[in-house]
Amino acid sequence: MPHDCSFLEDLGVGVSFEDADREEHSADWGTEGSDRAVVPDAVVRPESTAEVSAVLSAADERGVPVTAYAAGTSLEGNPVPAQGGISMDLMEMDAVLDVRPEDFQIDVQPGVMGSAVNEAVASEGLFFPPLPSSGDLSTIGGMIANSASGMQTVKYGEVGDWVLELEVVLADGSVIEAGSKAVKTSSGYDLKRLLIGSEGTLGVITRATLELAGRPQQIRGGRAIFPTLDDAAEAVADAVRSGVDVAKIELIDPTSAAIANEYLDTGLPDAPMTFLEFHADHGIEEEIDFCRAIFDAHGVQRFEMADQEEMDALWESRKELAFALRAYDDDLHPLHPGDITVPISRLPEIIRYAKDLEEEHGIMVPCFGHSGDGNVHYTVMVEKGDLESFERGEEIYRQVVEKAIEFGGTSTGEHGIGLGKRKYMTLEHGEAGVAAMRRIKDALDPNDTLNPGKIFPETTERDERATVEADD
Amino acid sequence: MPHDCSFLEDLGVGVSFEDADREEHSADWGTEGSDRAVVPDAVVRPESTAEVSAVLSAADERGVPVTAYAAGTSLEGNPVPAQGGISMDLMEMDAVLDVRPEDFQIDVQPGVMGSAVNEAVASEGLFFPPLPSSGDLSTIGGMIANSASGMQTVKYGEVGDWVLELEVVLADGSVIEAGSKAVKTSSGYDLKRLLIGSEGTLGVITRATLELAGRPQQIRGGRAIFPTLDDAAEAVADAVRSGVDVAKIELIDPTSAAIANEYLDTGLPDAPMTFLEFHADHGIEEEIDFCRAIFDAHGVQRFEMADQEEMDALWESRKELAFALRAYDDDLHPLHPGDITVPISRLPEIIRYAKDLEEEHGIMVPCFGHSGDGNVHYTVMVEKGDLESFERGEEIYRQVVEKAIEFGGTSTGEHGIGLGKRKYMTLEHGEAGVAAMRRIKDALDPNDTLNPGKIFPETTERDERATVEADD
Repeated sequence: MPHDCSFLEDLGVGVSFEDADREEHSADWGTEGSDRAVVPDAVVRPESTAEVSAVLSAADERGVPVTAYAAGTSLEGNPVPAQGGISMDLMEMDAVLDVRPEDFQIDVQPGVMGSAVNEAVASEGLFFPPLPSSGDLSTIGGMIANSASGMQTVKYGEVGDWVLELEVVLADGSVIEAGSKAVKTSSGYDLKRLLIGSEGTLGVITRATLELAGRPQQIRGGRAIFPTLDDAAEAVADAVRSGVDVAKIELIDPTSAAIANEYLDTGLPDAPMTFLEFHADHGIEEEIDFCRAIFDAHGVQRFEMADQEEMDALWESRKELAFALRAYDDDLHPLHPGDITVPISRLPEIIRYAKDLEEEHGIMVPCFGHSGDGNVHYTVMVEKGDLESFERGEEIYRQVVEKAIEFGGTSTGEHGIGLGKRKYMTLEHGEAGVAAMRRIKDALDPNDTLNPGKIFPETTERDERATVEADD
Repeated sequence: MPHDCSFLEDLGVGVSFEDADREEHSADWGTEGSDRAVVPDAVVRPESTAEVSAVLSAADERGVPVTAYAAGTSLEGNPVPAQGGISMDLMEMDAVLDVRPEDFQIDVQPGVMGSAVNEAVASEGLFFPPLPSSGDLSTIGGMIANSASGMQTVKYGEVGDWVLELEVVLADGSVIEAGSKAVKTSSGYDLKRLLIGSEGTLGVITRATLELAGRPQQIRGGRAIFPTLDDAAEAVADAVRSGVDVAKIELIDPTSAAIANEYLDTGLPDAPMTFLEFHADHGIEEEIDFCRAIFDAHGVQRFEMADQEEMDALWESRKELAFALRAYDDDLHPLHPGDITVPISRLPEIIRYAKDLEEEHGIMVPCFGHSGDGNVHYTVMVEKGDLESFERGEEIYRQVVEKAIEFGGTSTGEHGIGLGKRKYMTLEHGEAGVAAMRRIKDALDPNDTLNPGKIFPETTERDERATVEADD
């Protein structure tokens, strides 16, 4: 049953009830065209914090769900309006508000694209280091909401580590500032960190102060090719453990390389490899040599530094892998983007585990990702229209997640829980852990207004109602 | 009125009602001998998570406050049992549980001393980088609870940045694990970060998994002397902004130097200076030269690298400054340890502001601290027994805090709120921000069992009761 959203027309905030507009806000990259997409009853486009507050307070009073939406590049259905109501599109709030190069800081609205931050500060010799691979296509607000990270996290940390202060509108419309423009604070509860990664279930981010870094004087990239995937994974783990100061260290398995070649004509060798990038202000050659020595000990076959053009092609192919998986074979469907993360010593083991399942089931399971963090993106390529293949795919997918948790790792390193990972929450956090999160949700959003139906595994009252209605 | 704690005798947990024992748990370093000390009704010494849980669940049922206590080195009265009840001494839980050098990880109980972590992993070539200056004397549990940081935070980050996972007992006795042994996760709410710095008001930490770093191959230290304090502060701000990779950069004003000389016979020059340390795996001389060039531009008079022995003396004198302040003059009382932190560009201005107040009022205001983070420790030296001097001192103290907040900074960079900074909470976080924190506190600890009377500025019901009783 739709929610009555006619009250939006009296708020003076941009609102749309058009089908096409609502359709566009029904899914993210991860749920597009799937049965998990849900069309909202209305789309609002606030242009200021005051407008966000007005919508939230009015919706909260009326029991109408509000789900924030930005570029829609998330992968776990994070901004799907699972229980209908309002999709709050924040793309109009895309201003760079202030740049303070003297403090390495920038203030932005949530709809600013990741790449726009870099453009705004490039002339000052600064950059925003933790951008995800999708940084050209996704927004700062979305990255913060989903606690994103990227290829350079191995050196620079996650997006959340570079957020100093957030302005956030809570469910009841009240506005808080969390964090500080000082680089450290121990003043009260860390609401900023609680909000980062809460996927719009606790508040809507309306402004962020980000920290920046000086662009390194030296950048060198290249790739290394190994005899076996095991060697490659062991080499990565050993390099990280040995303290090699690497800015990117991405593992690509032969299955992924083959798929990238098909899609992009990249001509990658049919072999396990790592893509590398080093950043330094001086002494970069020493760092590269250090890495090479460790890779040598793991039988590296080729260790090649690239020129700028080759490097660009290399990273382009890495970035495009997610798209390549979709386009690879019309008969195959890539089953969710896996995002498990394990302690680095377990990296070789978890990859071996996934590849053993690939072999056992005869189903392609391309593995790649931010291996320096122990983060593996894996995809199970199931046969379209074949229920048995889907079921086995889901089983493989589940086994890898559970193995990662068994290893002390996590079901998601950077994509968030959304809809897709809800079922693993209790296994990962225990009942008491999930209950504590629930108590926080209930305290800050007692009417379950903000992005209901996400993160928590349990069936909520409104979930039930929605299910009953769907069955009617 | 004391709380009836006789139920503790039936729990099988070590308990003491001795006067001396209770006295010892009435204050921390910051409140020792002051009227803010409060003697608890009982001291318990749990030896396991199960015992912590048993005490909490029994106390929570009975409405008896429980305040965690470890080494007592905090400075804002953080572990003072402000409303009586139970002081939970965690010093018996001092085991190193596991070292996993292959993952740069260590699991410890809360009562493990900071220095013990370094000792446990030294043979592996590892160390715990963010230790506070009091690391030899304070515990990991206390550091995490107060979101501590230290001299090396400018390079390595805060204690909280090196905590991967926490086992925590909540007020009702339930046990949760927050965080992950993977280096990154975006799975659910970041309870770990919420608990870090919550000063024992949301839960009691019973185990921590810490991340470690490889010890740098090269370490060099030294000091730089400037014509004016302004030059020194500008030089620090400029060095940090320019991306000098410095591991410690501590500012010491002439007042502090004079006090250190008196206490330690350190023979520091009567001049503004910075103490420095550089860590690198290679190319340390280039980094030192980089720093020297920037300091030259700010008129540095001497820039001297020291040998190991001189360095040890240097850092010893820096560490002892807090003690030196107390011992300096029997007629003077050091008024609270200031801990404001500002965006780095405001560092020179906030120091100038404090020194102008020193001059204006003719009251010594020594300033020193982790200047690379914009963190200034300042102390107002008031005359003992002189109420007017105390009042002016408090006024100076307050003005500096308010100026820091006006600059976008924080009332506390690393000491926490405790009792001492409660009055600035609303100014710093706004009413909505404090209200959001309060809602979280009420959700996780509805009976206000854990360390009541801390962090929040408002008078709680039990505060009122305590006041009325004290007046009786």
